[in-house]
Amino acid sequence: HFLELGNLHKKYDTVKILTCLMFHIFKLIGSGAAAQVVTSRGTHGDYLTIQLGSALGAVFGIFVARGVSGAHLNPVYSLSLCVLGRHPWKKLPLYSLSHLVGAFLGAATVYLQYYDAIQTFSGGELLVAGPNATAGIFCSYPADHLSFWGGLVDQVVATALFLLCCVALEDQRNGPLPDGLHPVLVGALILTMGVSMGSNCGFPLNPARDLGPRLFTFVAGWGEEVFKAGGGWWWVPIVAPFVGGLLGTLTYELLIEAHHQTTPQKEKKSRRTILGSGFKGLNNTYSRTKTYEILM
Amino acid sequence: HFLELGNLHKKYDTVKILTCLMFHIFKLIGSGAAAQVVTSRGTHGDYLTIQLGSALGAVFGIFVARGVSGAHLNPVYSLSLCVLGRHPWKKLPLYSLSHLVGAFLGAATVYLQYYDAIQTFSGGELLVAGPNATAGIFCSYPADHLSFWGGLVDQVVATALFLLCCVALEDQRNGPLPDGLHPVLVGALILTMGVSMGSNCGFPLNPARDLGPRLFTFVAGWGEEVFKAGGGWWWVPIVAPFVGGLLGTLTYELLIEAHHQTTPQKEKKSRRTILGSGFKGLNNTYSRTKTYEILM
Amino acid sequence: HFLELGNLHKKYDTVKILTCLMFHIFKLIGSGAAAQVVTSRGTHGDYLTIQLGSALGAVFGIFVARGVSGAHLNPVYSLSLCVLGRHPWKKLPLYSLSHLVGAFLGAATVYLQYYDAIQTFSGGELLVAGPNATAGIFCSYPADHLSFWGGLVDQVVATALFLLCCVALEDQRNGPLPDGLHPVLVGALILTMGVSMGSNCGFPLNPARDLGPRLFTFVAGWGEEVFKAGGGWWWVPIVAPFVGGLLGTLTYELLIEAHHQTTPQKEKKSRRTILGSGFKGLNNTYSRTKTYEILM
Amino acid sequence: HFLELGNLHKKYDTVKILTCLMFHIFKLIGSGAAAQVVTSRGTHGDYLTIQLGSALGAVFGIFVARGVSGAHLNPVYSLSLCVLGRHPWKKLPLYSLSHLVGAFLGAATVYLQYYDAIQTFSGGELLVAGPNATAGIFCSYPADHLSFWGGLVDQVVATALFLLCCVALEDQRNGPLPDGLHPVLVGALILTMGVSMGSNCGFPLNPARDLGPRLFTFVAGWGEEVFKAGGGWWWVPIVAPFVGGLLGTLTYELLIEAHHQTTPQKEKKSRRTILGSGFKGLNNTYSRTKTYEILM
Repeated sequence: HFLELGNLHKKYDTVKILTCLMFHIFKLIGSGAAAQVVTSRGTHGDYLTIQLGSALGAVFGIFVARGVSGAHLNPVYSLSLCVLGRHPWKKLPLYSLSHLVGAFLGAATVYLQYYDAIQTFSGGELLVAGPNATAGIFCSYPADHLSFWGGLVDQVVATALFLLCCVALEDQRNGPLPDGLHPVLVGALILTMGVSMGSNCGFPLNPARDLGPRLFTFVAGWGEEVFKAGGGWWWVPIVAPFVGGLLGTLTYELLIEAHHQTTPQKEKKSRRTILGSGFKGLNNTYSRTKTYEILM
Repeated sequence: HFLELGNLHKKYDTVKILTCLMFHIFKLIGSGAAAQVVTSRGTHGDYLTIQLGSALGAVFGIFVARGVSGAHLNPVYSLSLCVLGRHPWKKLPLYSLSHLVGAFLGAATVYLQYYDAIQTFSGGELLVAGPNATAGIFCSYPADHLSFWGGLVDQVVATALFLLCCVALEDQRNGPLPDGLHPVLVGALILTMGVSMGSNCGFPLNPARDLGPRLFTFVAGWGEEVFKAGGGWWWVPIVAPFVGGLLGTLTYELLIEAHHQTTPQKEKKSRRTILGSGFKGLNNTYSRTKTYEILM
Repeated sequence: HFLELGNLHKKYDTVKILTCLMFHIFKLIGSGAAAQVVTSRGTHGDYLTIQLGSALGAVFGIFVARGVSGAHLNPVYSLSLCVLGRHPWKKLPLYSLSHLVGAFLGAATVYLQYYDAIQTFSGGELLVAGPNATAGIFCSYPADHLSFWGGLVDQVVATALFLLCCVALEDQRNGPLPDGLHPVLVGALILTMGVSMGSNCGFPLNPARDLGPRLFTFVAGWGEEVFKAGGGWWWVPIVAPFVGGLLGTLTYELLIEAHHQTTPQKEKKSRRTILGSGFKGLNNTYSRTKTYEILM
Repeated sequence: HFLELGNLHKKYDTVKILTCLMFHIFKLIGSGAAAQVVTSRGTHGDYLTIQLGSALGAVFGIFVARGVSGAHLNPVYSLSLCVLGRHPWKKLPLYSLSHLVGAFLGAATVYLQYYDAIQTFSGGELLVAGPNATAGIFCSYPADHLSFWGGLVDQVVATALFLLCCVALEDQRNGPLPDGLHPVLVGALILTMGVSMGSNCGFPLNPARDLGPRLFTFVAGWGEEVFKAGGGWWWVPIVAPFVGGLLGTLTYELLIEAHHQTTPQKEKKSRRTILGSGFKGLNNTYSRTKTYEILM
């Protein structure tokens, strides 16, 4: 009993550190792609390469940490699971904090790597709006045309669709995936969001990935404008994704998962096989919870 | 017997709802990509990102519903199967109606999500033609150079090729695919159509996906011009795909499927294995029909 | 014995017809992508979408016919095998003729589908050179900067690399591939050629794919200029690929295949397994030859 | 004993020759993509196609040689393994020299293939800087905005991330990959680097891939400016990747590999299975070392 508790404790720390690390990578690659296009004024990429960067950042973030942390990447996903009773509420704050810290550190690394480029591009002035703005490299701001309600709707719809697809990709009863295809499809999903739902406010989808870098830019010299811009936009990508995420997860539960015909017995077995081969770092005690823990 | 009928009924409803849902997603992502590029005047994507959106929309539409509905997505495909005697005619109207409703709802969601953007872009005027036209976000219109016969030929050729490839990807005897690759290849096929056969009239390929959103735009304020434009173009993408689809399916039947050398015995077995592992929601009574039901 | 001969004969015809068909599709998609970009003056795609079209055309060409014809696609590949003694010389003329006819028919279909677009774009004048040239949609012409020797070197180098990679992807002893990944990788290889070796003369790589459409344009109204252009360029993409193809195949044989450590016994077994599951239409009498017959 | 030595000797030569060959292909495709875009002044590709060329070059380089040489591609990776005690130090010089020679020959082939294009583009003057510069086709030069320290940081961060992901993709305990997906993911990783970390100095990441072509351009007519440019930039992409590579490898070791829960017994078995099927040319004596030898 004591031994198990000790192991659990050790595992908690690992998950915490790794989730940070993963976010680090995720942010680093995704924001790096934006930094590159913005500061090169479009000579080193275009809108598509930024989206490819976001997508591939997620792909390799998951590939790096999938064996150990199970690749928890999004507080929205964690919350959905808590509400559905498939994830302990007490883990939520720690996970969310790790996401936030990781995203903050990722933004800091991008700033370090693109320091010269950002300084040259902006003439040393770190601005949130205007032709030489650089704050958009790190977190989301609404387009000029977007109203408050429009932004809310955009984020609810986008996150609902995003989570619906995430849960579907996770659901082994809905159809299995070969080892190694799953992270690639999550990347494809993020690319999908970028090419289909990116022009209103940059598809934040993830409260931690948006707030962490915003806090970094606040500290690093962009100042309080990062919170004031867009009529106090900053809290929309924190609140709306939770609403959309719950909506998407519930939709999947009601429309798809409720209609699976396999018996739990059978299902449990097939799940264990797939998880057993693909995710060796996870112990298989709560197989139901596990499936949902893999992604996001 | 009664029990089975009851289950069938329940399954029918599920299929209906899910096909709608899938079309919803499909339309949402595909049209969203067009809305984004049009309303951002090309700053948030280009022709390729629109095609990527269409392709990825299909990919995730299939991934979400593949386990339950078998991913029926296109009335043309259903009709081809009916003609070949592999699908009951009585299911056709219900399926087609679900497609139509789903596509209508998908278009409505895109309009909701891009409402601010479309209003700002068009200055509040919902137009079908001209530099500020926005109707093309939702359904197909012919290019200026296209004659009536040219449009007919384009859609017959494109749908024939499309269905030929769809049926080939479905045919387990022609060569198996790993679980999870099939939806990705359908997406690649749609991308192929977009980059190769998109400039004449936007490759509708699918009567429901074209008519549903057209009805929505008619209702939502674009008015009767959506039916008048292009010399009454609207019925071409409804009729021509059926002709092309039959042509493509028959070509495959005659040139490829007729030449398979495996005995039905052997084939049945390999099919069951693949369907059994990949598509658990389907009961395997009519294995021949099933294979053809998976896609489109 | 008589029965077997009869079956072989039947199979020959099938291969012939299917190879034509495949080329048809292949050409149709690849040239369609070029027709779309050229006639839309770049509003419906760019250089990358043309290359994606070529690549995806090959992918679906192979997916359609892989189970029956084994996907012979390139006379260069067939000749290399004949020289190495792995393919009967007597089959070569029939195969090459099928390629040629298929490519001719593919070009005709593209012209049919894009007839209005080409007429509008060119003002009715079918030209080989100048800003309104449309001959480049169908077959290769050298860039202005390219000398005769430069074109020869370009095609030898490109075809050598192309065949080297084709043979490597085929070689099961070099490392197996999951079912269904092979056609995708051939597509990726063609994309590679397009982005890396396309600006000198459009990477023909394939004598039949170049000559067939050239003959079509000669007949369809572009006239004898299609043979005169580029200082009589037309025969370079017919001769040079054979030289490069042999070079690439031999390089692979000497550098890689000669160093495999598995015994023939072992190898034969693993090959049979993979072919047996993936390519059911092939009888496995001459397993060595078979492996090489799959591609190109 | 003597026999084994003889075999080892033979294998050494093979590895040497093949690594050269692979680099040849790798460079040829990657630099070819750059040559194509530069000399066509952007009509035959853009920034994305150059990155696709680099990525696909790596993919097919690995596919060609994976069965025999185990696809050693980067001296940084070899050095990391030596430091960690998993690779014999004495092999390092020979491997690195092969890399260098292969990259030199690859650059020479690109120059040969694009000789006419480069001469026409540059007016016969082989320049390192300015609008008609062509040296950037072959190796990396810093952007104007980049300071010395900025370049150092960029390369350390980029190589750390690159190696971290490489090692993660290699680590079978972290999650297996289907045969054939591994080379594709390495290509995706290189694409990631290109779209996210390419605008500061072109992500050299690899000392041999940068120095070999630089030596070629020095010899071929660009002169000593290739070493003087960017304030003597040439040695930064040689030294910084070693620092970053070690950092990335160690980070993975400490954060992920140290936390794997499988016993060595179990691990050894699963590794052998995967290597045994995928990489038949490797003898499995030191299974730990082997895993790390596969990539880079």
